Amino acid sequence: MKTEKISELTIKRLSIYLRCLKELADSRVVTTSSQTLAEQFQLNSAQIRKDLTYFGQFGERGVGYNVEELRTHLTKILGLETQHRIGIVGAGRLGMALASYVGFDPNCFKVVALFDKDNSCLGMDLRSGVHVHHIKDLKEIIIQKEIVIGVVAVPESDAQEVVDQLTEAGITAILNFAPVRLNTENGIKLKTMDLAKSFESLSYYLSNEATGDKESTVTISGFEEK
Amino acid sequence: MKTEKISELTIKRLSIYLRCLKELADSRVVTTSSQTLAEQFQLNSAQIRKDLTYFGQFGERGVGYNVEELRTHLTKILGLETQHRIGIVGAGRLGMALASYVGFDPNCFKVVALFDKDNSCLGMDLRSGVHVHHIKDLKEIIIQKEIVIGVVAVPESDAQEVVDQLTEAGITAILNFAPVRLNTENGIKLKTMDLAKSFESLSYYLSNEATGDKESTVTISGFEEK
Repeated sequence: MKTEKISELTIKRLSIYLRCLKELADSRVVTTSSQTLAEQFQLNSAQIRKDLTYFGQFGERGVGYNVEELRTHLTKILGLETQHRIGIVGAGRLGMALASYVGFDPNCFKVVALFDKDNSCLGMDLRSGVHVHHIKDLKEIIIQKEIVIGVVAVPESDAQEVVDQLTEAGITAILNFAPVRLNTENGIKLKTMDLAKSFESLSYYLSNEATGDKESTVTISGFEEK
Repeated sequence: MKTEKISELTIKRLSIYLRCLKELADSRVVTTSSQTLAEQFQLNSAQIRKDLTYFGQFGERGVGYNVEELRTHLTKILGLETQHRIGIVGAGRLGMALASYVGFDPNCFKVVALFDKDNSCLGMDLRSGVHVHHIKDLKEIIIQKEIVIGVVAVPESDAQEVVDQLTEAGITAILNFAPVRLNTENGIKLKTMDLAKSFESLSYYLSNEATGDKESTVTISGFEEK
């Protein structure tokens, strides 16, 4: 048994490695190495080795990793052997769009309920096939449908209340789309999908692309040193 | 003039610092320090100082940073002194939701057009007030409306074609919501909003929360060492 501090970034990279391994498995590749993975998917081989050592010793020196075996390990590390059931609060355009999102592996994630406080939204969403429940039934439906992840897709003015309601209903993992800083109790994992931050990074790129290098190396000039 | 390799993560953190400074300015705070920023907003003071030194010398030892001055500098570094006009391709639920997203500072980002290949979507979207154009007019409208950022909100099967069309129309900064790996030409900055990765990180948290520590320190066990 090992106790280590695993960063959010390491976890994100494990997700990426897992996808690369899936591609390799789909192409019937049996063995790979950190070097090959790095070259094929534009990753960093030293980083791959470092990330994997957090979780034990994988692969054999000179032989590399067995693709299926490493895939099974990463799936287990990320907790993806079981399906996680998702409830989305907010049945507006965003909530509806998320309910019919096809980017998840359905073996790992499934949206099973939508919630809204507006009575006019209630009923079945024909496109996603997911039922819209009234928010007053949140706790009951969460227990009944074994929901473990809550998604906040409401306007920012309602977001804190929804987080509190989800917490009260026993949810410990929340993905938030409202552009606002939210308070959570201890033991609650809240991730915010921050669109503004992504656009700001594009803005940085646009304002620096004229300097010549279009990749991550940029020339910074014109700041007064004081 | 300095030439430095600035990571995507540094840029993301600058966005965060900028928001913290805005909160401070709104509360009429005049001076701050990396230490105070770190304490107030749960950041890392050494990281703040390191990130800022990439862009020149800010603040005075023992005095700290002038909030408004640092805010002006960061705004300039991120290219946020000018408004960036955004075009969204895909006028389905997601595209429509994005068009009425309120999380951007309207001085920095503004959605000015939606595009779709489906004739039934064309016209004005009443909620966002943004016009939906036919995709065949993409290049013309991009030039006319001075669009510099393209958003891909189409199904994954259409995403590569849309990226190619945006590139052909002169767009160099793209935010993609389709759950698929896309190819871009040199000089094009493409960011993908990867929902699956965010859910996988929640899944990791859920499968490790039983080990006791609910923050980023987790206990890993049960992996065979070989």
